Amino acid sequence: MTRDGSDVDQAVVRRSIDTIRALAMDSVQQANSGHPGTAMALAPLGYTLFTRFLRCDPAAPEWPGRDRFVLSSGHAVILQYALLHLTGYDLSLDDLRQFRQWGSRTPGHPERGHTAGVEVTTGPLGQGVGNAVGMALAERFLQERYGRPGGPSPLDHRVWAICSDGDLMEGVSQEAAGIAGQLGLGKLCLCYDDNRITIDGTTELSFNAEDHLKRFEALGWHVLSVDDSEDLDALHAALAAAREETERPSFVKIRSHIAYPAPNAVDTAKSHGSALGEEEVRATKEVLGFDPDAHFAVDEAVYRHMDLRERGAAERARWQESFDAWSAAHPDMRAEWDRAHAGEPEPGWREALPTFPAGEKLATRAAGNAVMQALAPYTPTMIGGAADLVESTRTTFVGGGQFARVHAGRNVPFGIREHGMGAIVNGAAAHGGILSPYGSTFLIFSDYMRASVRLSALSRLPVVWAYTHDSVGLGEDGPTHQPVEHYAALRAIPHLWFIRPADANETAVAWRVALERDDGPVALALSRQGIPTLDRDKVAAADGLAQGAYVLWEPAGDGDPDAILIATGAEVGPTLDAARALADAGVRARVVSMPCWELFEAQDDAYRDAVLPPTVPTRLSVEPGVTLGWSRWVGDRGASLGIDRFGASAPGTRVLEELGFTQERIAAEALALLDRVA
Amino acid sequence: MTRDGSDVDQAVVRRSIDTIRALAMDSVQQANSGHPGTAMALAPLGYTLFTRFLRCDPAAPEWPGRDRFVLSSGHAVILQYALLHLTGYDLSLDDLRQFRQWGSRTPGHPERGHTAGVEVTTGPLGQGVGNAVGMALAERFLQERYGRPGGPSPLDHRVWAICSDGDLMEGVSQEAAGIAGQLGLGKLCLCYDDNRITIDGTTELSFNAEDHLKRFEALGWHVLSVDDSEDLDALHAALAAAREETERPSFVKIRSHIAYPAPNAVDTAKSHGSALGEEEVRATKEVLGFDPDAHFAVDEAVYRHMDLRERGAAERARWQESFDAWSAAHPDMRAEWDRAHAGEPEPGWREALPTFPAGEKLATRAAGNAVMQALAPYTPTMIGGAADLVESTRTTFVGGGQFARVHAGRNVPFGIREHGMGAIVNGAAAHGGILSPYGSTFLIFSDYMRASVRLSALSRLPVVWAYTHDSVGLGEDGPTHQPVEHYAALRAIPHLWFIRPADANETAVAWRVALERDDGPVALALSRQGIPTLDRDKVAAADGLAQGAYVLWEPAGDGDPDAILIATGAEVGPTLDAARALADAGVRARVVSMPCWELFEAQDDAYRDAVLPPTVPTRLSVEPGVTLGWSRWVGDRGASLGIDRFGASAPGTRVLEELGFTQERIAAEALALLDRVA
Repeated sequence: MTRDGSDVDQAVVRRSIDTIRALAMDSVQQANSGHPGTAMALAPLGYTLFTRFLRCDPAAPEWPGRDRFVLSSGHAVILQYALLHLTGYDLSLDDLRQFRQWGSRTPGHPERGHTAGVEVTTGPLGQGVGNAVGMALAERFLQERYGRPGGPSPLDHRVWAICSDGDLMEGVSQEAAGIAGQLGLGKLCLCYDDNRITIDGTTELSFNAEDHLKRFEALGWHVLSVDDSEDLDALHAALAAAREETERPSFVKIRSHIAYPAPNAVDTAKSHGSALGEEEVRATKEVLGFDPDAHFAVDEAVYRHMDLRERGAAERARWQESFDAWSAAHPDMRAEWDRAHAGEPEPGWREALPTFPAGEKLATRAAGNAVMQALAPYTPTMIGGAADLVESTRTTFVGGGQFARVHAGRNVPFGIREHGMGAIVNGAAAHGGILSPYGSTFLIFSDYMRASVRLSALSRLPVVWAYTHDSVGLGEDGPTHQPVEHYAALRAIPHLWFIRPADANETAVAWRVALERDDGPVALALSRQGIPTLDRDKVAAADGLAQGAYVLWEPAGDGDPDAILIATGAEVGPTLDAARALADAGVRARVVSMPCWELFEAQDDAYRDAVLPPTVPTRLSVEPGVTLGWSRWVGDRGASLGIDRFGASAPGTRVLEELGFTQERIAAEALALLDRVA
Repeated sequence: MTRDGSDVDQAVVRRSIDTIRALAMDSVQQANSGHPGTAMALAPLGYTLFTRFLRCDPAAPEWPGRDRFVLSSGHAVILQYALLHLTGYDLSLDDLRQFRQWGSRTPGHPERGHTAGVEVTTGPLGQGVGNAVGMALAERFLQERYGRPGGPSPLDHRVWAICSDGDLMEGVSQEAAGIAGQLGLGKLCLCYDDNRITIDGTTELSFNAEDHLKRFEALGWHVLSVDDSEDLDALHAALAAAREETERPSFVKIRSHIAYPAPNAVDTAKSHGSALGEEEVRATKEVLGFDPDAHFAVDEAVYRHMDLRERGAAERARWQESFDAWSAAHPDMRAEWDRAHAGEPEPGWREALPTFPAGEKLATRAAGNAVMQALAPYTPTMIGGAADLVESTRTTFVGGGQFARVHAGRNVPFGIREHGMGAIVNGAAAHGGILSPYGSTFLIFSDYMRASVRLSALSRLPVVWAYTHDSVGLGEDGPTHQPVEHYAALRAIPHLWFIRPADANETAVAWRVALERDDGPVALALSRQGIPTLDRDKVAAADGLAQGAYVLWEPAGDGDPDAILIATGAEVGPTLDAARALADAGVRARVVSMPCWELFEAQDDAYRDAVLPPTVPTRLSVEPGVTLGWSRWVGDRGASLGIDRFGASAPGTRVLEELGFTQERIAAEALALLDRVA
């Protein structure tokens, strides 16, 4: 049956499915690299999903009303490329011939931004499951915001995802699935390719004791099973049942045979990650009734049958009509919608940012909370939450409501699931319409979600990672909870901005910078402990944060200072005190606040040389983390006050004191440096 | 009932349990920091487990025959400290008074090596579950090795663990539980504290849709439930049933009430992570019939009742008798046992390490495989495996057997569960008797297991993280699979040694260094692609790796070289070629192979200055990763050839070429540097 119930020629259906297989084999063979087996086995599922269920318009791959499709088992990407090509997306046979080649639109795993129709970057297993949950969450939130009460609704789409055993073994998918079950994300359908083959052999080694359906049922999911991936009726029935379900996410287990119907490669681990070889490709094409000498060959009938452009245009037109009616009825909402989809908060948001009076001791996590409250009215579709730590991270929109079984709240209770949170936030950002979604936890636990943070940077998603408890100054919880290497580890990730603001006012600017960035993620590091708010009448304005580093304070006198003290975050305050004490003692030390290396790197030489004049080699960095990387800024004749060890359990002030982060020690280090250089 | 079936005075039982509660309250109150609620709620479980089930001898906390106890919910550590104190371990009331203070033996979370009776460092949630699985795996493996055929067995103990909802929400515990179910680790019992309270409120927000028993049953576990944590008979019955089970790991869900019986704090989130306050402590003591004015007060009767030293000594003596008999029957095995427990391979192992002939192109992952085969006979209790990638990482003992339902194999099929693997390997190392256990995956996926890698370093566990596919040179899989920031990110972790060997012979030395290290972890980075094995007749010996960096090749001529080229891993070869070409052109460039920064840092100044003379500031580093940190070695007047971006999908040689890692480009960069400095 087709979507509208009419009969179609079963021969062209089979030929279409087998063409997907042939293209997968040919592309992998041409590249002599890739994963043909899964693409071949899932050709019937891919065919059924795209032609019968997925609401899409190949001519408008970013149409907001589309269903979302996520291939979490990204190694099988050639399946997706073949489907995109055959259904009419902007992906040619030549693109398929360039599979896995430099500069092509067909990289080895799906990459967001490289290929029309690819929603998210997947490959690292389990991430796509979390992304799909994030998209389903975004859909529900936006539907609640824009679709009620009554009337036409601009949003009402589904999220379809395919995953492998590897995706299900990874903890990140378990975390995401737990959240999806908890929150009742009923628009999500996850198809599990149960092929019982892994790189190292069969799942008997590592995965056969598990009852997958029972596990997902235990997580609150609607579960379905298809015994034979070649049974199109069964596939159709299962997907249709998933589409009917609205209260619970659906999990469809599909028994498949990797590399089917390759005569020798079927059900083998080798066909997972290697080209089949010319001979096996020929043999398989013979089984399929294809010309073994033809490569990248597609029947016109298949093109005609699988082309979704006409249907897609009609569906999009229907949606557009509904959307236009909604827009006419709700012009304010429509304006907000447009801004949110462009990544813009409501007008006036910058002016609404708070400034904080000098002197008051305020943790930057508390300042961050105040900033969020000020932003709340201007960022109506900004959602996020913490991994069960909002009481500590303070990253909550007061009065914004909990996102729970009712999907209207802005505060998402992720539970103690950092990695799942990371993948979900990425998915929400990729969905569109959600403004700078954020995930929050203690800085130390950025380790748990690091793979998702990396993907946010690789995918250039405008998300915010709001980390608190950002140093050994958190105190008693001890070394298991005290970040020391995390500044360096996050700075190491390309394209991620890591910002550690010095006080409440820098925190406000940091959030502004985070919301202004539209081509990548920002990680904030905020303090647990109180920090005196700097008196900006006596030091430079906090706006300097936007340049990454700036001269915060300059001692009296002419010419170059004797030394430059460079500090970040909570350590800027005692460094300033140290510099003032040094000035009283006749030593002129400039203080540079350096909250963000990446932004400073992006400035021109003139600005950087003005802040850190090459003529002043006596530079001391002050940061309670590993010194790795600081030589870049302090140079051969500088020094770094850091913590090249793990922390310790004791009250925070004591730990900082023992490890050398006091005004006195900073001043002493500066003097020792001047002595050495003199 | 006591263990031997006799009746005991129920009053002293209750008083003992309540004393645990009182000590927990007093310690947290004294520190004004900590987590009293869980310790109070779990006092009956802790009491029952320690006094009725745990085989231990407080006077010999490292006795190999002991049961292992893991508190995965490490924030509740005051429960463990109170139990250790009351049962006669070397932990005094004064130590409890010093809870969470600088230099104390009672840090804020359990820290291996700080406190007698603490087996592993926990706190980051979920890790302890994995550690416990690793211990249960180690026990089964050693039992198979030493306990068969027939006769007395030196090993036959259980692993008891306690975890919280947070532990179960974390993906790492799901991964570890999946492996435990798959492998039938029947000596493990995991008690789940079902208190329905999290930091942010109740589990209704984030965890109540889940049927925990069903989930663990789906993973192949034996599941049990206790409806009331105050019901000692039910607790006893459940733990006894777990002890009887040998084929499947046991999961015991125990419904508890956090902070019970504090009149106002019970069942509140606040009592999770804050001191109760003087008033509430007083009120609770009154409920318990304790003197509200007394602090850290323990009845003599409680000490007498809970003291496990006599029983422990008797149990240990019985074990020793059996162990002595076994030793007499199997002197060779006993000698191996002693060496394995001391972290020593069998004699002759260093001599058995292979050397590789020059010229042959060999991936360092392949060289690593050859080294492992050579080591295999000398490291009979070295076990490990990959996260379903041994076909790619090659980290397998050929003929060593699969660790499966029969627990004799050395190759552990972890499945696609990097994080679980990390925690399990840590647990196996902490168990004792397992020589340098290892976990392996692609370097990129070190991100997935980073929290466990950190804990291996913090806990100083002698484990090996064998990472392969160590650069963009892996090729077609593209940026999702190509590490670039991982060198820096792993170097950032204190106390971890990160080694990237240049060729096959350096790989052999790297494995030697890894096996020799007994106070911390070593991470290896090995190549996917073939690397020419250097001709050691023409360059310095690979032993130089043990110093972290060494002069590999020096051009002819006297005095300082014109430049120093510093490279790691696969890039050493082309750097050497570049230097030779430069020499032909009259430019004298020294080549330094620098496989391990941490080992080089540990050398004295004289050695480091000999390798990198301060008189030669023209230094170029060559490594296909982010340049973060390299300024430390190349200095203000040096330069770094690196990759400060993500990689790309294409054949590996093309990617390396496009990103600048060819002999020609290296030589050109060196010349450009000399031009700039001149």
